[in-house]
Amino acid sequence: MNAFEYRNGELHAEDCALNALAEEYGTPLYVYSRTHFEHQYRRLAAALKDADPLLCYSVKGCSTGAILELFRGMGAGLDVVSGGELFRGLRAGFDAEKIVFAGVGKTVDEIRYAIEQGVGFFTVESEPELERIAHVEGELKKSARVAIRVNPDIDPGTHEYTCTGKGDTKFGVDPATARRLSLRAIEHDALRLVGLHTHLGSPLMSVDPYEKALEVIRPLCRELKERGPHFRRLDLGGGLGIPYRPEEEPFDLDRFAKMANAAVGELGLQLVLEPGRFLSGGAGVLLTRVQYVKPHPSKTFLIGDAAMNDLLRPALYDAWHGVNAVRQTGETVCGDLVGPVCETGDFLARDRELPAAEAGDLLAVMNAGAYGYTMASNYNSRPRPAEVLVEGSSARLIRRRETWDDLVRGEE
Amino acid sequence: MNAFEYRNGELHAEDCALNALAEEYGTPLYVYSRTHFEHQYRRLAAALKDADPLLCYSVKGCSTGAILELFRGMGAGLDVVSGGELFRGLRAGFDAEKIVFAGVGKTVDEIRYAIEQGVGFFTVESEPELERIAHVEGELKKSARVAIRVNPDIDPGTHEYTCTGKGDTKFGVDPATARRLSLRAIEHDALRLVGLHTHLGSPLMSVDPYEKALEVIRPLCRELKERGPHFRRLDLGGGLGIPYRPEEEPFDLDRFAKMANAAVGELGLQLVLEPGRFLSGGAGVLLTRVQYVKPHPSKTFLIGDAAMNDLLRPALYDAWHGVNAVRQTGETVCGDLVGPVCETGDFLARDRELPAAEAGDLLAVMNAGAYGYTMASNYNSRPRPAEVLVEGSSARLIRRRETWDDLVRGEE
Repeated sequence: MNAFEYRNGELHAEDCALNALAEEYGTPLYVYSRTHFEHQYRRLAAALKDADPLLCYSVKGCSTGAILELFRGMGAGLDVVSGGELFRGLRAGFDAEKIVFAGVGKTVDEIRYAIEQGVGFFTVESEPELERIAHVEGELKKSARVAIRVNPDIDPGTHEYTCTGKGDTKFGVDPATARRLSLRAIEHDALRLVGLHTHLGSPLMSVDPYEKALEVIRPLCRELKERGPHFRRLDLGGGLGIPYRPEEEPFDLDRFAKMANAAVGELGLQLVLEPGRFLSGGAGVLLTRVQYVKPHPSKTFLIGDAAMNDLLRPALYDAWHGVNAVRQTGETVCGDLVGPVCETGDFLARDRELPAAEAGDLLAVMNAGAYGYTMASNYNSRPRPAEVLVEGSSARLIRRRETWDDLVRGEE
Repeated sequence: MNAFEYRNGELHAEDCALNALAEEYGTPLYVYSRTHFEHQYRRLAAALKDADPLLCYSVKGCSTGAILELFRGMGAGLDVVSGGELFRGLRAGFDAEKIVFAGVGKTVDEIRYAIEQGVGFFTVESEPELERIAHVEGELKKSARVAIRVNPDIDPGTHEYTCTGKGDTKFGVDPATARRLSLRAIEHDALRLVGLHTHLGSPLMSVDPYEKALEVIRPLCRELKERGPHFRRLDLGGGLGIPYRPEEEPFDLDRFAKMANAAVGELGLQLVLEPGRFLSGGAGVLLTRVQYVKPHPSKTFLIGDAAMNDLLRPALYDAWHGVNAVRQTGETVCGDLVGPVCETGDFLARDRELPAAEAGDLLAVMNAGAYGYTMASNYNSRPRPAEVLVEGSSARLIRRRETWDDLVRGEE
């Protein structure tokens, strides 16, 4: 489904005209479609229903409370990677049992907090982390559930920065070490080995890397299932991609589901997935109002009021986001959509065909629902945008725009 | 000077042991040296004293109020690029006359605010911006002072993202257009042309690009000085570099000063400069406490509690920052210093010799005073660090660490 469509030449989020939302809430503005979140979650849940999955929405992609609550309402769990994300999840009413805690740098305080709250399990990234969890667990006299993260040494073909499944990254441990740590967890009084985890990177547009990873970890799953009394989960991480460019094929969900259903069926395990971008990426747009059209001999600069501090992906990953005129004209211009931040890295679209906009026109940067607001900063002392959640013809402010006072909050 | 030195094997900020500061304020932590800020400012002011300079500290590099106040106390002006930065400057007690307002995307509200407050001048980046300023000025019945920004089409040899003086960037206008806009400003009832502006990029380690830029704009300065009754300033922007790597030569301040003093002397203009990194870069370090040492066949990962959300420069620009053990050992290890953020782009140092640290050890990421905290985000729901300003043996918290409650502030 596409929740963002033109009606009489005006781009809408569901039944709300984006122009009207920009008028009401100002720009830059993040607008999300509730129906899109729901549609994606239900598609995924339906495709995987044979695998009895625990679908843990990945908080890092889009973490505002109202959106977390929406996923809770559909029965999702959560994938968190910090104490702050766990705090957000609990605040949104999630049952801690359905929260999994990942990440290479868990502090003692974070581990203690997570054990006290009773998170579902930790995915463990290294031997010293396993020791640390066991140690904290010993202090608290509770039982910590863990799943060792296997790094299968597979190149998923993502941007270097978002590849996490290659052997030379900081993530997980090689299969032999994973086996050793898993056996240690099984034998350790203070630990319960509940599964194996792997995560390859993001966004993945092909199912092949998942299949390759399964080949690597399947024998280990079989062995641990036999030896570990609590071993019952296979966590395949997230990374399921969405098409950012019009020519990209969507992620083959049917093929992925067939593979995952078969794998956990054969192994007798429960599937855990940590989708983020797949659920939230297409659900959001970033609205920017053009301030200046600056001609240049070789191209035109559309200077909008949204910048790299609002949406970092183009600058950081050279990521491609579609740009649509909110009021459709059909005319185009060749150039860049940039922001007011004082560096050349501040672009949202570069060297391509863009809507021919005039000052005052509104543009929508598409597929900004994942890794948009969560990566925003106050660089150049710019308050972060507001966020609005649309459902049908109603729109609701879910986070107010920051003010200048927010910029200096905490200064002594 | 170097405000960060070892004493008895312990790294200090002036007379404060960094270990003690980390104990007191926690990690990750930004620590700044007041003496270093002052030393750099005074060096620059002394070298340029013949040019009667207005030294406008560039807020975007390091913008916390206590630091702005410090520069105000030494007589500096400010370079701001947004309404938020202007707000910070006024809040820190700066006389608006000594504030210059740059940036390609100034909104009507920002222009109005700046005119009402009486900023020194706007640097104007495009023809429509000049029209907009004149229009707002007309409404307010005040006189807006402007300096047209010339893009001299010079490659300063910086990272692509921080090069601003090449012709194909969004910044400024070509010399012929600058001449036309300047003449228009001279003739416009509502505008006063007070100077010319140029800015090449950052960090610049050589004086050559400034010399080349001067060659481009000198004839125009001469003409405008004759024709413009208020034309009296030459704003050479900022970009003065600092050595990040030990093998780098410091910026040749003497040569730069000789060039600048001679140029404005000959032209009969006042020099305006907008240094940021030069004043603040070396004044700050980011402290990170090692959480895990993760061995790997090809290298060691030191996983600290500071991440790309705290210091973005390595991920965004592949920037190099020195890493020192706070407790000196002399032993080294080959690998990466990374953070807990769940992506491979989360590194502070990559593939190089690092101090051989153990879990619990403290590392200092050097030269983090510019574009450190100002680019920080809450990515992965990580509260931003605290900031501490040291003077001699006393240390003062100038911004408290964010809390989890700060993460959800503004959510409805």
